[in-house]
Amino acid sequence: MSVYLHDIPLYQARSRLREALQEAGLWRVLGVESIPLDENALGRVTAEPIWAKVSSPHYHASAMDGFAVVAENTNGAQPSSPIQLFVTGEKSPIPNHQSPITKYVDTGDPLPDWANAVIPIENVESLDENGEITSAIRQPSSVRIRAAVAPWSHVRPLGEDIVATQLVLPTGHTLRPADLGAIAASGHQEIKVARKPKIAILPTGTELVPIGSKLKSGDILEYNSLVMAAQVKAMGAEPTRYPITKDDFYLICERVREAAQTHDLILLNAGSSAGAEDFSAKVVEKLGTLLVHGVAVRPGHPVILGMVKKELGIRNEEAGNLIPHPSFLIPIIGVPGYPVSAALTVDIFVESLIAKWLGRRPNQLPTETATLTRKIVSPAGDDDFVRVAVGKVGDKLLAAPLSRGAGVITSLVQADGLALIPSGTQGLDAGEQVKVHLYRSKAEIEKTIFCIGSHDLTLDLLAQFLAEHDRRFASANVGSQGGLIALRRGEAHLAGSHLLDPATGEYNISYIRQYMPDIPVKVISLVGRDQGLLVKQGNPKGIKSLGDLSRPQVQFVNRQRGAGTRVLLDYHLNALAMSADSIIGYTREEYTHLGVAAAIASGRADCGLGIAAAAQALDLDFIPLFQERYDLVIPKIFTDDTLLAPLFDLLADSAFRDAVSNLMGYDVSVMGTLILED
Amino acid sequence: MSVYLHDIPLYQARSRLREALQEAGLWRVLGVESIPLDENALGRVTAEPIWAKVSSPHYHASAMDGFAVVAENTNGAQPSSPIQLFVTGEKSPIPNHQSPITKYVDTGDPLPDWANAVIPIENVESLDENGEITSAIRQPSSVRIRAAVAPWSHVRPLGEDIVATQLVLPTGHTLRPADLGAIAASGHQEIKVARKPKIAILPTGTELVPIGSKLKSGDILEYNSLVMAAQVKAMGAEPTRYPITKDDFYLICERVREAAQTHDLILLNAGSSAGAEDFSAKVVEKLGTLLVHGVAVRPGHPVILGMVKKELGIRNEEAGNLIPHPSFLIPIIGVPGYPVSAALTVDIFVESLIAKWLGRRPNQLPTETATLTRKIVSPAGDDDFVRVAVGKVGDKLLAAPLSRGAGVITSLVQADGLALIPSGTQGLDAGEQVKVHLYRSKAEIEKTIFCIGSHDLTLDLLAQFLAEHDRRFASANVGSQGGLIALRRGEAHLAGSHLLDPATGEYNISYIRQYMPDIPVKVISLVGRDQGLLVKQGNPKGIKSLGDLSRPQVQFVNRQRGAGTRVLLDYHLNALAMSADSIIGYTREEYTHLGVAAAIASGRADCGLGIAAAAQALDLDFIPLFQERYDLVIPKIFTDDTLLAPLFDLLADSAFRDAVSNLMGYDVSVMGTLILED
Repeated sequence: MSVYLHDIPLYQARSRLREALQEAGLWRVLGVESIPLDENALGRVTAEPIWAKVSSPHYHASAMDGFAVVAENTNGAQPSSPIQLFVTGEKSPIPNHQSPITKYVDTGDPLPDWANAVIPIENVESLDENGEITSAIRQPSSVRIRAAVAPWSHVRPLGEDIVATQLVLPTGHTLRPADLGAIAASGHQEIKVARKPKIAILPTGTELVPIGSKLKSGDILEYNSLVMAAQVKAMGAEPTRYPITKDDFYLICERVREAAQTHDLILLNAGSSAGAEDFSAKVVEKLGTLLVHGVAVRPGHPVILGMVKKELGIRNEEAGNLIPHPSFLIPIIGVPGYPVSAALTVDIFVESLIAKWLGRRPNQLPTETATLTRKIVSPAGDDDFVRVAVGKVGDKLLAAPLSRGAGVITSLVQADGLALIPSGTQGLDAGEQVKVHLYRSKAEIEKTIFCIGSHDLTLDLLAQFLAEHDRRFASANVGSQGGLIALRRGEAHLAGSHLLDPATGEYNISYIRQYMPDIPVKVISLVGRDQGLLVKQGNPKGIKSLGDLSRPQVQFVNRQRGAGTRVLLDYHLNALAMSADSIIGYTREEYTHLGVAAAIASGRADCGLGIAAAAQALDLDFIPLFQERYDLVIPKIFTDDTLLAPLFDLLADSAFRDAVSNLMGYDVSVMGTLILED
Repeated sequence: MSVYLHDIPLYQARSRLREALQEAGLWRVLGVESIPLDENALGRVTAEPIWAKVSSPHYHASAMDGFAVVAENTNGAQPSSPIQLFVTGEKSPIPNHQSPITKYVDTGDPLPDWANAVIPIENVESLDENGEITSAIRQPSSVRIRAAVAPWSHVRPLGEDIVATQLVLPTGHTLRPADLGAIAASGHQEIKVARKPKIAILPTGTELVPIGSKLKSGDILEYNSLVMAAQVKAMGAEPTRYPITKDDFYLICERVREAAQTHDLILLNAGSSAGAEDFSAKVVEKLGTLLVHGVAVRPGHPVILGMVKKELGIRNEEAGNLIPHPSFLIPIIGVPGYPVSAALTVDIFVESLIAKWLGRRPNQLPTETATLTRKIVSPAGDDDFVRVAVGKVGDKLLAAPLSRGAGVITSLVQADGLALIPSGTQGLDAGEQVKVHLYRSKAEIEKTIFCIGSHDLTLDLLAQFLAEHDRRFASANVGSQGGLIALRRGEAHLAGSHLLDPATGEYNISYIRQYMPDIPVKVISLVGRDQGLLVKQGNPKGIKSLGDLSRPQVQFVNRQRGAGTRVLLDYHLNALAMSADSIIGYTREEYTHLGVAAAIASGRADCGLGIAAAAQALDLDFIPLFQERYDLVIPKIFTDDTLLAPLFDLLADSAFRDAVSNLMGYDVSVMGTLILED
């Protein structure tokens, strides 16, 4: 292997690519096409300035239904001394002051050549041949007016909107609806726009399976190509998604050469690292020039930037027997395989390229300064893009870091923005200010209810219902205790908590007093939640109660120390006077409900304590044993906030209660019960 | 006529429409359709919550290339006391502590059932059968490690991203690229989205001609349907543009009935006022119920809101002999004819309707508070939407009102936002704060160079060139003197000025001293500009110089008192000792260069003084007489601002100079000359 991963700073990577494109004559608008001026022109980018061919209006036009006059002839008209104007036909000569004339015009009609003002129809008295008032208001013999008008009153003068020869829109303008109207008004029926860059997206990987496949262990759903296609489409380019190519050097070469014939950019997904099955760098070296392998940016550092030859006439030749006929080069980007890395690579490297090729300004997200809710550790050498949830709690704009995992696509879905920890810093502490590039408008963020603490499926339903009541519900899972601590720090509107006090058998209250003393709160029950034993489908070991855990053939799997479920187990073992030693596997710890369920599904254990949803997620059986209470803890300062009003309404809403009841293992009878009010 | 225009407040109009839609069962998502999960799903709105069908990852996956281990077996490993692990096959039993085992895994591979951590390949020493270090790094006999790993290190646990049964996205969510990935990852290959509302757009008006027509006096280009189609398309609906219908009650009825069969909403354009040719209200009354005729909102007050019957089986019957079979109702909006009114009516009434029908939140423009640069007068009873240019000059965010004319579509093109003067106020003074709904991002606004003063075609070219250098150039035409006054008030970065001092024959300087004393400025020449006589094509009267103006058969047309061109004329008449009385038409005043040109083109005058561009715009001949200097006046506080740097660069740019030279009547030899520096 001749290629090694070696991270270089982001700005250097960008400038290497730009230089290569400049050298290849590709650092410019790729091409211009003429398209008809219709609604499909929306969002296209002008490739030439648009100069007006005609004026608009292209004649002096009446702005009202009324009578065209020479303004000077109306001078002196007053309520007590009206002036009479004689109605005439179109082609009258320039009038003399002795017999002033007028002519009826509709809105938009051209002013007669001799006229320079219009009197609205409601301001005249229509007279018949005898000088009597008539109802033929549009065809009178004459009209009487009782006020003068200034020149050019109620007239849209020629060129009021657009003057022939003026600039209507510059090059590089992204067309909006009103722009299309102005272009039409200035006499065009076609427009020259930048042609859409064509982008080939090549997913590679032997382990990949297409969306919709029945999954077996080790299969990875290939959806990066979908996300990347949607991204470049939104940026104004035209994506082509290729089928999955196996990890095979020659097959990948062949695909890249094929795509290069008809595209402006290739995104070669995965295989960009330096492992044994990572062919991307070698493919780029084989077919062109490797410019960059590795960029000091997180997530996404194993990025490859290169140029490959666009070859002609060798499309169907056998691999290994290539006769290259290089005509010119196109760029190729080796995109890392983890979905978040892939999406951010497209944002960081492809957006600015498409902007250049379309001749528009690069998209810029609005930025705001926010207070960080958790410490972020970051490698000093990297530009680190951290997905954050953003919410306004009281007066503070908060940025709560989401999962850092590059494989967690939902962290992008939940993200309200990206916080950039620039290279040179080793991270930021909780409470520090951080610059956040926002995905959502501030208005949307101000409608966000920020909930932190223990996660429960009911919160997902709450989010679903709140969305229909003009609220976003963002919940971060930091455990019950973490939620109370966050409330103390003013970092959430409410917390979900199910902390059992083993001394009293009561939920939450003693913990609230301990973790957030002096903060007045309201505590309201959300649900009663079944905890029980998760067992294999059909319950082959016939497990029925905690007592069965001490049977020698039963392998248990436990939750970690401090978990609410572990506290609950110990409380009940204590009540039954059972010892932990009597349970095989009591010391085997998993960190989530789902971890417990997975251990059982895979056969590593026979049972564990958890919630029904975890059993449902992995098709296990569930034996309900106890009910625990899951409460919402809300500082009093927020209880009367209109932001939270829809949430309180939902607790009494029958549709919401029904939806929760339909979940397995939930009891809504306690919903909305006031537990504590300071 | 039974229908009278009667303005009601906006909120009342909206609630009447909402109530009618509620009654008709149309105040909800119109329909749900299932679409494939591909990049065309971008921007669609979820019609059902998306719950995860599978977990992601759906197994415990290695996050690195490395060796799967039982973490507990690595305890105690240290640089000085390594631990050896024996490489085994897939289906090994749960290991005992005496002979700890390991297995090679690639990134993404499932963890063996017995393992709970991965040691990255770079952290192990690969050994052969004899315990010697080997280069077969993936197929060694055993590996040696010198550090312990924690459980679940370098593992993506089952459900790390998505847990089966969890909520992935709520109803009413507009799909972005990452969302599509999350939906795919959660096991879906189709999505239920709200069907797109179908919107019929019916242009009516006998005077209308389609885009691209050769225009004759009185013709009005029909482009409202284009703008409205693009608007509703951008809002997520599906527009149908109908051909132009003449002002004929029965034809319009027939069209409306036809469109009602297959659409969810009809936008009936123009004819919404109360004139003789305004049939919209009568059509709505005939085919259904007129709810509102007239809303107290500017521009756009003659809006009609109504419901029309969707009739079946009578499509081809003769008008006048209708047998209505009402099945149900659809809404119809009579949209005013002026383009700005039409576009704002769609924004105000249609956007929220489409949002409801799609189940998404209505679009909300970001708002900022800005300082008004000019007084706005507004009728107290109306909600008045004023288009404004927005720029940041120094620390002040400024809102400069653009043309109020409802026919001026370019005011929407140039607008950076809408300032709302709510009903109940009679306007706002210059310097007052106003809330502006922004069309552009703040970042874009901060790249805007605000130029105010006299307009010149060269400024259009400057805008065109600056757009290619990451700057927006917004110029407002208030005349040379108005520009200097604006600079004094700190309301622009620079002004364009061509004020001749008749006493000295010098340009601008004496006016700068008079209008903006104590403000240090830099004055730089932009161009020398020809002023000359505009005459009919072929110059039938043989006019050659100012001296010809006193010939009895020559009709002159003048500019208004105070105009720079009038000052110039008087200065030269004075020099020639010619009297104004000797010129027929000296007292006939037009207010713009183009007004002068139009008077000549229509035959009302033989000649006038003006610039070459005005002649070009109306195909007149131009006889250059004098050159005047057009300068840029820049307060010193802005001359070193990076914002303006690209502008100064352009004054020395040969491509820009060439482009200006190619315009008729311009001299670039003075471009960039420093006239004054305080």
